[in-house]
This record gives sequence, structure tokens and C-alpha cells, in this order.
Amino acid sequence: MAAPTMTEERTIVAPEETVDTPAMVVDEAILQRNIAEMQAFAAGVGVALRPHAKTHKTPRIARLQLAAGAVGLTCAKLGEAEVFVDEAGVADVLLAYPLVGEPKLRRLLALMERAHVTVAVDTVAAASRLSEAMTANGRVLDLYVEVNTGQDRAGARHGVEAVALARELAQMPGVRPVGVMTHEGHAGASSPGAIAETAHAAGRALVATAEAIRAEGIPIRTVSVGSTPSSPYTPTIPGVTEMRPGTYVFNDNTGFRHGRIGPDRCAARVVATVVSRPAPDRAIVDAGSKALAYDPSPSHAGHGYVVGHPAATIARISEEHGVVVLPEGEAGFAVGDRVEIIPNHVCPAVNLTDELLVVRDGRVVETWRVAARGKVR
Amino acid sequence: MAAPTMTEERTIVAPEETVDTPAMVVDEAILQRNIAEMQAFAAGVGVALRPHAKTHKTPRIARLQLAAGAVGLTCAKLGEAEVFVDEAGVADVLLAYPLVGEPKLRRLLALMERAHVTVAVDTVAAASRLSEAMTANGRVLDLYVEVNTGQDRAGARHGVEAVALARELAQMPGVRPVGVMTHEGHAGASSPGAIAETAHAAGRALVATAEAIRAEGIPIRTVSVGSTPSSPYTPTIPGVTEMRPGTYVFNDNTGFRHGRIGPDRCAARVVATVVSRPAPDRAIVDAGSKALAYDPSPSHAGHGYVVGHPAATIARISEEHGVVVLPEGEAGFAVGDRVEIIPNHVCPAVNLTDELLVVRDGRVVETWRVAARGKVR
Repeated sequence: MAAPTMTEERTIVAPEETVDTPAMVVDEAILQRNIAEMQAFAAGVGVALRPHAKTHKTPRIARLQLAAGAVGLTCAKLGEAEVFVDEAGVADVLLAYPLVGEPKLRRLLALMERAHVTVAVDTVAAASRLSEAMTANGRVLDLYVEVNTGQDRAGARHGVEAVALARELAQMPGVRPVGVMTHEGHAGASSPGAIAETAHAAGRALVATAEAIRAEGIPIRTVSVGSTPSSPYTPTIPGVTEMRPGTYVFNDNTGFRHGRIGPDRCAARVVATVVSRPAPDRAIVDAGSKALAYDPSPSHAGHGYVVGHPAATIARISEEHGVVVLPEGEAGFAVGDRVEIIPNHVCPAVNLTDELLVVRDGRVVETWRVAARGKVR
Repeated sequence: MAAPTMTEERTIVAPEETVDTPAMVVDEAILQRNIAEMQAFAAGVGVALRPHAKTHKTPRIARLQLAAGAVGLTCAKLGEAEVFVDEAGVADVLLAYPLVGEPKLRRLLALMERAHVTVAVDTVAAASRLSEAMTANGRVLDLYVEVNTGQDRAGARHGVEAVALARELAQMPGVRPVGVMTHEGHAGASSPGAIAETAHAAGRALVATAEAIRAEGIPIRTVSVGSTPSSPYTPTIPGVTEMRPGTYVFNDNTGFRHGRIGPDRCAARVVATVVSRPAPDRAIVDAGSKALAYDPSPSHAGHGYVVGHPAATIARISEEHGVVVLPEGEAGFAVGDRVEIIPNHVCPAVNLTDELLVVRDGRVVETWRVAARGKVR
């Protein structure tokens, strides 16, 4: 990670402000700056921004993104989409996840009465059920073909396999392939030096796949790419029309890996209290995996970044304990002292909290409900 | 892990039962057996059972434990204790965690009006604030001295350091050291061959510390040990009077490590659906870290155990995706098929769900609210 300068190491909650800990706080100014800058980037490269809402799960933040110019939201799960449609008035949602099973088909049909919904598919099996459900109910569903451009998670492989899937979808009643999408998460996971090249290759593979599908007479209008780490790169490939970053709204340690951001761009932190000091080189904070999530750091050792203490390492966590290993003489870790921790991966950390404490100029001014928390279905 | 026999590989939800996935299901018969057997063990070795409620976070299950003979509950956080006192009528709670900060002191005083509360302390700093708050309010608080017997997380070191802390506590007004406790988590993390020896050593160190404190004229009545993996060993040390296992109520993959249990003793599973089948050796299930938690497995590779498929490995997870790597020709992984997954660590997985679906003879018969979920404060 790039060595942060001392000016970047600002805590966002004023020392005199009372906060019962652990709690997730969000700095409103950093949040607004992150939203504005990503929107400006999307406008600059001429693509639509459809943020992935999994990062914040919060209707209030969805409204800020839409007000800034986002064309709609991306959600992983139907339960998240239901919250954003009903509580944030979102009119256009992409479900970037295969919908499988009867209960979900019923909920999808109900949601389509309240918003425009697009669903990602990567198998004929899932698409067939969608086609049957739509046909039986006299509806037509827009689909994105989910394309694997190298992440090797879900998705039909770019090229021949994705084209064959699109051809089958085009022949099914009740569904209509209108886009292709990829999640080039493998670019973000690559080394900092390789990220641009990997992201560009993923973007080119997706655009080529879209062209090949169009050559079959199927009018693909949207070519959609994902992920915050790759966001400076993939959307610049000619032919890409939409981007779906999520994490940018808060940022987290993942951003440190690529040297683009420091703590000053991280809007969401877990405020924790030092609750024990069992040894000179060891402090216990009251944020463990139940506040920070267990996800490993892509950028450095440990389970989160302690703002202002770059040499402190959260060496181990259990559910309620963060074990911080300290350099000799490190100040600020007496019992009762408070620290701010940037999670390794902010999305699952947000999923652990029911509310965000919104901070303006060091003071907690509002509480925003994480209304889509825990919506796994 | 001990090779499970085929009879142990039973799923708990009947194939014809509809479950929207992912969902956490609990087999009532396995749950009741786990509760009864641990209670019988405690009675057999003559110690009190004070289960750690962090595993289930569910008032209905707390009531089953108390009905079976538990003397009270252990909670990590005040917020959990408040739920169990108010919703399960628990009259006696141990807060096995340092209480630091004004908001928590106020809540502690309020809770003491409704239940008998004991608090663990491991620093003079935290104890002083408790003493001041109790004195100012005319109350006396029972304390356990938290003793580090080798885990090196929190706790005053066994022997001289813990005795010195107890001596200071005994001189503070408003608080009363009545017990010593340890969490010998390092025993469970040791190799299967070393667990008994490590647990016995921890138990002996704790008993010796209690004796040394008593020699100062401080009447320590409770000597309390923790953790499910070490539960067959530490409570058998003469002088131990109380045990605080948590995970035993459901069990998880941690138990496999020590060869004592197989999947048939695991009451809680995440039911998941195969949502994609992108390659012959790869299936995607709809349970990722948002359903299973990210905690690594102590016993085997992967992010959970797929019941009935010992050769399948959940090789990677992201929030909504479990990437299952399959042996050639493995049946049961077509799109739409359902699997049951035993989490690596069941406690954080329970913390991700708002409800447990209770299964009797293969059918979902009740929904129990995980009322203490997310109570980090």
C-alpha cells in the first residue's frame, strides 16, 4: 500500500463526541465527494453509472446516488431490490444474480409491478423458469447475459459460450436479452501493476461478446462492467455503456492496495473502544468480526486499518475482540480510549449493523437505517 | 476430521419441503440431544452449566437450556443480556466481557434492577469505573476476575498478576470479586492430540489462581471455564465449579477437527440452492459469506461442509456466491438442487440471520427469532 501521509490520517468523530461502541460512522463530506467523483468519472467516459447497492444497503444513500445522476441501482438479491424500490423510490433495478426457485419468481413478478427490473442469467435452466413464469403471467422480462471474463465465479464464458446462451434466450418467450454484464473482480484481485491490463482485457472480451451476439441479430444495447478497483479502467474500453461499482461510496482497505486512495477517502469506519490492555504490546478493542467482518485484507496484514496508527496491527479477531499488536510506546491505547477502524471489506461490515451514524464536522447528526441489511433472499 | 459414515450424512429438511434459500434451519431433535447431553455431562462432573448464548442468540433456545438445568447464561455484550433478561426471563447473567464507557454503565445499572448480573474484569481501569458507578448508585456488583491461562487475548495472567488484580478489586467499594474465569480457546485451537493436555493445564492454572486469591482472604466461590472444544476436559479438573460452552448447542465444523462429532450432531445448517453450474467441476450456491460467515475452517479446506458430499469443497466465497468445486460426476448439483451446509463457525453465521427455521421430522414447523442478533454493544 502507498504510505499514507499524516494529513490523511484524520479521524472523523470529534474526541468530545459521545459514541457508544462499536458503531459504524459515516463522514457525510467524504461520502458526498466519493459519490460526486464517481458520477463525474462516468460522465467523462460517457457511460451510465448503476451503483451496486450491496455496499451501503441504505435507502438514504441510494437517493444521494440517484440525485447525483445514477441511472438506477444494481442489487444482488430480490430482498434488497424490494427495499430500494419501496423505501427509496428506485424505478430501475438490475438484479445481478441468478433468480432460482418458485418463491423468488413470485416476488419478482410482484416487484415488476412497481419498478423496471432486469435480471442477470447465466444458464438456460434458470432462464427457462423465468420464461415460463413471465409467459404464464403475460409479462416480458429484460435479461442481461452474465459473462465470465476471467473471474471464474458464475457467468457463461465470454465468446462462443455466451453467444450460444444469448441465442437460446432470444428464442424463449417472455424474456428478452438486452444486455451483457461481467464482474471483473479478478482485476481487483490482481497485483497493482496488473490491474489496468486485466481490466482492459475483461472489457474488450465483454465488448467482443456483445458484438458477436449482435451479429446474430440480437439487439444488445447495454454492455455493463463492475467493481470499484477496476473502475478507472474497464469503463474506458470503447463499447462499454454502463458501470456498476459499489465500494467507491465508502471505500475500504481494498483501495489501499492499488495506491489510489488513503484513509481520507474512506467514509465508513468502525468506532471502537480499548477495553483491555493485557500486555505492553497488546490492546483489546471492542470491535471483532461481529463489527468488522472476518474478510482478509488484500493490502496488508491484519483485520482492519486503525486510522492514525499505521504501525498498529489488528493481528487477530474473534467475534467481540480485536487483538491489536502495538509498536513499543504507541500512545492512544489506554483503557477507555477510542479508535477508528477502516474495515478490510466494508460491504460485509455494513451488513452487520442496523444503522449508520452520520457525522458532519465531527458530530453525529443523523442515524440512517441500513434497511436492506441481511436480505440474503 | 474423522471420516463420517454414510448414516451421519443425513439432511434435515425433507426434499419435498419448500424453503426459500439461503436460510438457516435447526433440527429440533439434534438441538435437544445436544442440550441434554451437555447438561448430563456437567451434572456428571459436578459443575454448573452456564451456556454462552452467543451461539444461538435466541430466547427460545435459552429457555430450553434453562429448563434442562442451566444455572444462568453467559453473554458477551450488554445488548444480548438485555434481550435474554427481557424476552426469556433469564434471572442470572454473566457478562464475560469488560464493560467500558459511560453509556454501558448506565445500562448495566438498569439491567441490575431486573436480574442478577456478574461482570468480568481484567483491568483496574475498568473495575474503577464500575466501582464508582456502583458506589454512586448504592449498588454492589459481583465480579469475575478474567484470567489468561494461555490464550493471550484478554485477561490478567494466571498467578501473580491475577492475584494482584483480585487484591485491588477486593479493596474497591461497590464491587465484590466472587469468581475467576478463563476462556481456554487456545486448547480448542490446538491439535486434536494436544487438546486434553492443554485444557487440563488451563484448568489447573485457573484453580491454582483461585486458591492463591482465597489465600489472601478473598472468598472466591466460582471457578469458571469456557469453550465447547475443551468441554470434555477442563471441567474435570478438581476445583472447577462452572462451565460456559456455547457452540455445543448447534455444533459446527470445529467439532469435526477433534473427531468427536460428525454432521449428525450439527443441528444448524444453511440450506442453499444451486443457482449456476458454469463448469463441470464448479457449481455456484446461493450461500456466501452473508449466510455462512467468512471464518476459516479449523478442520478442512473450504468455507463450510456440504452434507452428503464430503468430496465437494466450497473453495471460495464472496458475499452471495459459494463456489463449490466438485469431483467428476458428483450428482446433486444441477441448477435448482438444494444442499445443506454446516458452517465453519456457527456463531457468526447465526448473527447474520434474523430467524431460525425449526425443523421436526423434515418439516419446518416453527420460526424462532434471533432476537439478540447484531447486539454488538
